[in-house]
Amino acid sequence: MGKVYLVGAGPGAPDLLTLRAARILAAADIVLHDALVHPDTLKLAAKARVIDVGKRYGKVSTEQRFIHRALIEAARTHDVVVRLKGGDPMIFGRAQEELDALAAAGIETEVVPGVTAALAAAATLKVSLTRRGIARTVSFLTPRVGKGETASEWLSSALTADTVVLYMAAGAGPAIARALIGGGKSPSTPVALVESATLATQHRSLTTLARLASSPATKADGPVVVCIGQVFRDAAHEIAIESTQLSVNE
Amino acid sequence: MGKVYLVGAGPGAPDLLTLRAARILAAADIVLHDALVHPDTLKLAAKARVIDVGKRYGKVSTEQRFIHRALIEAARTHDVVVRLKGGDPMIFGRAQEELDALAAAGIETEVVPGVTAALAAAATLKVSLTRRGIARTVSFLTPRVGKGETASEWLSSALTADTVVLYMAAGAGPAIARALIGGGKSPSTPVALVESATLATQHRSLTTLARLASSPATKADGPVVVCIGQVFRDAAHEIAIESTQLSVNE
Repeated sequence: MGKVYLVGAGPGAPDLLTLRAARILAAADIVLHDALVHPDTLKLAAKARVIDVGKRYGKVSTEQRFIHRALIEAARTHDVVVRLKGGDPMIFGRAQEELDALAAAGIETEVVPGVTAALAAAATLKVSLTRRGIARTVSFLTPRVGKGETASEWLSSALTADTVVLYMAAGAGPAIARALIGGGKSPSTPVALVESATLATQHRSLTTLARLASSPATKADGPVVVCIGQVFRDAAHEIAIESTQLSVNE
Repeated sequence: MGKVYLVGAGPGAPDLLTLRAARILAAADIVLHDALVHPDTLKLAAKARVIDVGKRYGKVSTEQRFIHRALIEAARTHDVVVRLKGGDPMIFGRAQEELDALAAAGIETEVVPGVTAALAAAATLKVSLTRRGIARTVSFLTPRVGKGETASEWLSSALTADTVVLYMAAGAGPAIARALIGGGKSPSTPVALVESATLATQHRSLTTLARLASSPATKADGPVVVCIGQVFRDAAHEIAIESTQLSVNE
């Protein structure tokens, strides 16, 4: 029986992978990866069979069991199995379900952490998520409303944290902004949107909750993190370079 | 004038640094690093002058200006300056103050993200910080009460998030637990403490808010993250191996 490594591929750029992740990829016999992993990252797995389970099975919840089955089968037939996930495996990656399925099958696992998208966004904005006197608490959340989940489950956390970073929230941006304003968050709160952080196709823009609330919901090409909080006011220094259409200074 | 790179050294183990960070360290002329960076990480800066500003100037806020002065001086006399910080620079790293000081001095900067301690703790516990149906929101916070900061500024966020990770909170653990229980968090909420995550000296233990609240405040040798939330119940599978004195099952 092989061992399965759940490895964080980092936020996008291939060189934002850890040294450990690169070493394990080089030793991998088989790699099962998410759709958003960079092709150059996959090249590090020089001797491995590489399977895109993101594209193959899709991301919908009913298909997660196919990934579990593929991982278990891979561990039965290969020594070093890598499950490569975008960002860090332990944030919004459904890692627990995979770890549990592997444990139930008696398969050894190890988790290799990675750089999560929120930190890559902060780096590219040159805005620290925490700041003395302004931001002591940071919340990461996914605001999707799925089966049995209501807005109230994430709204209170988003309202009380000084800095909020929403994952997988691009299309829901305006609805989220309206919910936050309705909950008492200041309409002038700065919002930075970072699409495809750290990649050549990266796009950053700066707005406010009020403007986001009244903007049309748009579908982005790449993954988007929505960064909300007073600290992002300072992103104006960086974003002015590439985007002049939005400003927090109006 | 040189360029200053604010680089995340990762959570502890030298191979949890990113490929980009390793490349920049190898090119560095001078490195100013925090006290907790691993000696093997510093060896990557083969041709650099290496200065421990953590040890030299201490961590107290009044000394931060000495670090600013040292960074500006370093950029005036060296091409590639690395400011190496534990974990990720943009989480509880006082990066904004350094970025602002460098910008005011007209010095170019770049931020290289890293693996933050909470994600390393999650990896070593094999517990995902998010989980469908249980944990949709994650909060990172420092519960220290400093000048002009009161418990209420972090408590509401800690109470509303499904998963909470406290940084720099070891000594304040019991007081934090009492505050959370007082605020309505269930006394049976699982708590995992991870000291020196990913290092050979790593120590993990599992308890509950109620037991943490009534335990004596202890000073740890290494940095500690305090992980609070229902998801950490599953850490019992991992922690049972090394620590039998605490259990969430009693």
